[in-house]
Amino acid sequence: MQTISVNRSHGGAQGVYRHASSVTGTDMTFSVFVPAHREGQKLPIVTYLSGLTCTHANVTEKGEFRAACAELGLIFVAPDTSPRGDGVPGDAKNAYDFGLGAGFYVDATQAPFEKNYRMWSYVTEELPKLIAEQFPVDPGRQSIMGHSMGGHGALTAALRYPNRFRAASAFAPIVAPSRVPWGIKALGGYLGEDKGAWRKHDAVALIEDGARFRELLVDVGDADQFLTEQLKPELLQAACEKAGIPLTLRRQPGYDHSYYFISTFMADHLSWHAQRLTV
Amino acid sequence: MQTISVNRSHGGAQGVYRHASSVTGTDMTFSVFVPAHREGQKLPIVTYLSGLTCTHANVTEKGEFRAACAELGLIFVAPDTSPRGDGVPGDAKNAYDFGLGAGFYVDATQAPFEKNYRMWSYVTEELPKLIAEQFPVDPGRQSIMGHSMGGHGALTAALRYPNRFRAASAFAPIVAPSRVPWGIKALGGYLGEDKGAWRKHDAVALIEDGARFRELLVDVGDADQFLTEQLKPELLQAACEKAGIPLTLRRQPGYDHSYYFISTFMADHLSWHAQRLTV
Repeated sequence: MQTISVNRSHGGAQGVYRHASSVTGTDMTFSVFVPAHREGQKLPIVTYLSGLTCTHANVTEKGEFRAACAELGLIFVAPDTSPRGDGVPGDAKNAYDFGLGAGFYVDATQAPFEKNYRMWSYVTEELPKLIAEQFPVDPGRQSIMGHSMGGHGALTAALRYPNRFRAASAFAPIVAPSRVPWGIKALGGYLGEDKGAWRKHDAVALIEDGARFRELLVDVGDADQFLTEQLKPELLQAACEKAGIPLTLRRQPGYDHSYYFISTFMADHLSWHAQRLTV
Repeated sequence: MQTISVNRSHGGAQGVYRHASSVTGTDMTFSVFVPAHREGQKLPIVTYLSGLTCTHANVTEKGEFRAACAELGLIFVAPDTSPRGDGVPGDAKNAYDFGLGAGFYVDATQAPFEKNYRMWSYVTEELPKLIAEQFPVDPGRQSIMGHSMGGHGALTAALRYPNRFRAASAFAPIVAPSRVPWGIKALGGYLGEDKGAWRKHDAVALIEDGARFRELLVDVGDADQFLTEQLKPELLQAACEKAGIPLTLRRQPGYDHSYYFISTFMADHLSWHAQRLTV
């Protein structure tokens, strides 16, 4: 693991790191904020999955999470959203919603993506293992959150690993990718046309198929330009109601899909996570 | 005035605007955050001057000021750092510390800069007038702050207009530009070789020449890479001591020159401003 930068911030250390991923076959960059802590102390950890077009940098610069993480004693990890580098297929110039910057948190099975686009294994296996080795993490106290495509990633990770994550929340998540244009394009391109293979990467389908999580927090702006076509939080609401999963779904008046929205509610989400991570 | 974007954030509105400046002879872009407020209410206003290479966008995205401004009821204005556009001399590709992105908050007298590089008049006259017309500002409750070159701008503005600004503070300011490389290059290039003309754009020289301000707050990181060569806060400390100006100078351990430093202490500065703006 190579250190790109470390800056003191809010009493802790905001780092950016790079490592050679055996899962994606590429170098991967991620950021980690470690708050001030006692020597030898192990801290709870929140993983934040970003949305389409983002790298680790968007939330690291604009997320306004450090003050809350410093106060609450949380480590905050932000991975990239796709493999990148020479020879990685998927040109961000041609499509912002597929390929580079749009890994969709799945392990691709379709050529030419299956070698590198393995973001599911990367964010749920390889990266957490690396982080636990390199940072003062209490692996028994993990939670996950994300935005948009990353909200989709966070919800599916929580539903598939309910014992690993003590809390899960999302900002403006894609809750049913099998049924919306972004998801249909991505799941079709990475996983192929067999829609059975899509269900374990669709939060609503996972719930329909029996997956459960103890409770979920979702904020979405009612001025979000993607609300009705891509996000469809009402589908998650219906699935949670039917399955008996407590869902706190808040429609925030006037907010859009941007980091101006995310940063507004970030401290609130982190406080919600901390309550569940520190019991 | 043209609206580029408005995003709801922290209960208020973060806007970016452009207007044709008669002072600089160019279009100028700036950002304004207006917190939630009662209909007809006039709010105190903080102007933030940015450092070398920045536009309005750096602090708007990375400054972490909105939560505090929302809580404290402050309008926050962030101008650009220089004129820009076709025909404006000064190539940022050749020098990050002179020309584009480096107006140094002076009115240039030297060719070819004297037509456009009039950032002193822009930030102290034209922009405040526009803001007061377009936003719910109480012109009797203004304060000013800035970072690095913008800290220089804020300190000189406060010292020259002590009755206009009720509070002034700075992050890692250039306090004596006449005596450091960045300042010597900029003041020489914009104002010419007569160093007498530099003194009203040098906080330490202004104090030596009799300018006063009721009190100043300055934070600087002790790991700031520009501390000893360009910033020299000890010169401000000596001048303030001699002049009887109360200066709170805090050397923050481990912090550098970046927005990771600024954002850490932003809420604290804003709270300090609010105490002086709301009495």
